[in-house]
Amino acid sequence: MSQPDRGLFISFEGPEGAGKSTQIAHLLRHLESESVPHTVTREPGGTPLGTRVREVLLDPELTIDPLPEFLLYSASRAQLVTNVIRPALGRGEVVVCDRYADSSLAYQGFGRGLNAGLLRGITAAATGGLWPDLTVLLDLDPVIGLERAARRGQPDRLEQADLTFHQRLRQGFLKLAEAEAERFLVLDATLDEADLEKTIWEAVQSRLPASEI
Amino acid sequence: MSQPDRGLFISFEGPEGAGKSTQIAHLLRHLESESVPHTVTREPGGTPLGTRVREVLLDPELTIDPLPEFLLYSASRAQLVTNVIRPALGRGEVVVCDRYADSSLAYQGFGRGLNAGLLRGITAAATGGLWPDLTVLLDLDPVIGLERAARRGQPDRLEQADLTFHQRLRQGFLKLAEAEAERFLVLDATLDEADLEKTIWEAVQSRLPASEI
Repeated sequence: MSQPDRGLFISFEGPEGAGKSTQIAHLLRHLESESVPHTVTREPGGTPLGTRVREVLLDPELTIDPLPEFLLYSASRAQLVTNVIRPALGRGEVVVCDRYADSSLAYQGFGRGLNAGLLRGITAAATGGLWPDLTVLLDLDPVIGLERAARRGQPDRLEQADLTFHQRLRQGFLKLAEAEAERFLVLDATLDEADLEKTIWEAVQSRLPASEI
Repeated sequence: MSQPDRGLFISFEGPEGAGKSTQIAHLLRHLESESVPHTVTREPGGTPLGTRVREVLLDPELTIDPLPEFLLYSASRAQLVTNVIRPALGRGEVVVCDRYADSSLAYQGFGRGLNAGLLRGITAAATGGLWPDLTVLLDLDPVIGLERAARRGQPDRLEQADLTFHQRLRQGFLKLAEAEAERFLVLDATLDEADLEKTIWEAVQSRLPASEI
């Protein structure tokens, strides 16, 4: 179990308010107009189990320590990889995932201070070693990100955390990207929406199996 | 983080229908009549997070693979150790827990075939290395256990699994007990209820801190 032979696995990462949903929607439109078979999913969620775990994780009434929080994300991820991501890649599809394991390494590792080796060990078990072929990181100054998120309505538990946490988070994502420069496409999330869309679509096109373009 | 200085941590293990709840109730009665400060809890559950995770784990409508199942139990356990078990032990109390990490090693390890080293590594992280001082294992032939459980009403997801699974589970519990004979008190769950009660209470009394008896 590691990378499958076929398909293309793309994840989107970045803080709240960076525009992941918007850029995922643009990418899906391109894939549809080119008739590229694809599956879109998200973390936490994407399966009946994941949906239930998502409700627990995002419930602002619950106290959840960093380690159980990470274990819940990992449980959702393990079920998603087995039931959704691997089967779709096996069918040769493009899989677009809104957040994946990098989010756990950034949030619970760099953000909450859990040991990186522990997180990577459990993640390797939960995913069977599956990592994206391309990870689009929408990088954003946390001050701007929190303003954007607040404008969209009630903050959830993640958004209520303090600015220092979000600064560690940003640095964490950038360190992950630096360590795997081939996998990551790091983009300034304050750039023009249409420019970001174009850059992302070009990066995806260059990685599509020849049969699909 | 490993064993705390004070208190006494007792877990009850065994299959569905072995009589854990009955014997826990007897033990609590003894502790109350001797005015021994104590806390009773259970897995999964015991905290607001654990209660939510318990609902997910025991929902017969959900498909949950062995690894995410184990990760959910571990999440509930990590929160329980931090919020309930360690604080109670720190206050010098007797903690009585209906199932603990041995259940995961037995159910997801011996029962579902997950790698024991992986389970122990994640368990060490989730518990900070905390194991019970005494584990009462109520050993029961799975045929009898399933009959008893069925008599109590609707089977939940665990009870629906097949007999072979329950036989592996029983052997798993017995192997765990054999490997740690000092910690485990293995009892034949078909013995007379009052005899079991007496044996358990004697085992607990012999381990109580001198100040509490």
